[in-house]
Amino acid sequence: MRELQERILREGKNLGNGILKVDGFINHQVDPALMDACGKELALRFKDVGATKVLTAEISGIAPAVTTALHLELPVVYARKHKPITMPDQVILTLSPSHTKGRMVELIVSPEYLGHGERVLIIDDFLATGATILGLVRLAQTAGSTLVGIGALIEKTFEGGRAALSHLGVPIESLAQIVSMEGDQIKFAVE
Amino acid sequence: MRELQERILREGKNLGNGILKVDGFINHQVDPALMDACGKELALRFKDVGATKVLTAEISGIAPAVTTALHLELPVVYARKHKPITMPDQVILTLSPSHTKGRMVELIVSPEYLGHGERVLIIDDFLATGATILGLVRLAQTAGSTLVGIGALIEKTFEGGRAALSHLGVPIESLAQIVSMEGDQIKFAVE
Repeated sequence: MRELQERILREGKNLGNGILKVDGFINHQVDPALMDACGKELALRFKDVGATKVLTAEISGIAPAVTTALHLELPVVYARKHKPITMPDQVILTLSPSHTKGRMVELIVSPEYLGHGERVLIIDDFLATGATILGLVRLAQTAGSTLVGIGALIEKTFEGGRAALSHLGVPIESLAQIVSMEGDQIKFAVE
Repeated sequence: MRELQERILREGKNLGNGILKVDGFINHQVDPALMDACGKELALRFKDVGATKVLTAEISGIAPAVTTALHLELPVVYARKHKPITMPDQVILTLSPSHTKGRMVELIVSPEYLGHGERVLIIDDFLATGATILGLVRLAQTAGSTLVGIGALIEKTFEGGRAALSHLGVPIESLAQIVSMEGDQIKFAVE
């Protein structure tokens, strides 16, 4: 998606060690118009998978998941990292390694909002190693839902996430594929 | 706003001690169409305050803040509760009591995205005691920004937040005003 790629080139920062800073339009400050355009594009790419629910992880997945779900006219569930007091005692929980925190974090959903018969589309901001998305896949599977697709704003192809998710046999879409972050460069796949 | 009030009456749960569970459409599962309608209404109410930026707090504030900002055509900044590695070492930080966690949490913004000359509209899911919103106000003031308005989806008038914020001298808007949660009831103010 040209609009997202151009924004990454203009405002994204390669901090080294594969860390891409996009805090100016996705991860801390959010550009709602860009998120809406990305959600519209992801909705288009997944219009035929028969999703009944969008699933994401707090925090940075929320904006793109909400705009994608808006265009698909579906509800979105965001997995929580801490169980709020409003959640029932019996929850679905998995552990997932956090790239930016250097430790395992919990991903928790309430069985009230994810269950048998749901067809789940996972949307997140990044597809890197695929670890967070695999955590969301486990939540969906434990809930008895069927995974129907995986979408991300930005994919770092050199971190192997797509290969780690390929056994799931569902379409995987990303709107900006970064193939290399050597030095201080940000190189995209040729579309 | 009738649509939000009806949804609260239909699906909200009074868990006692003033805790309103709206996990089915705001706080865990999100109804994007409802959030978009609420954002549109908040944007309408604040169309004349000259805001240049929307400010909210992760996590539950993100969805309504993004949709409000979308309709106002403004960027939105969400205060983080943990400093990510992409944030500079020098940040703006305040402590705020968390109603649902029973302890103080940090609210952190990067000076890159909130600074002098900004006119800040604060949007959050709840206006209860006003403590979180006062934390956001302190962040805006420390950054040298000017506060121009405060909006929330749901106000619990009996927790005194509006009075705690009145000295700020800015318009305060909420889309559903709950005046009492005695017993298992949810009573709204007459519009």
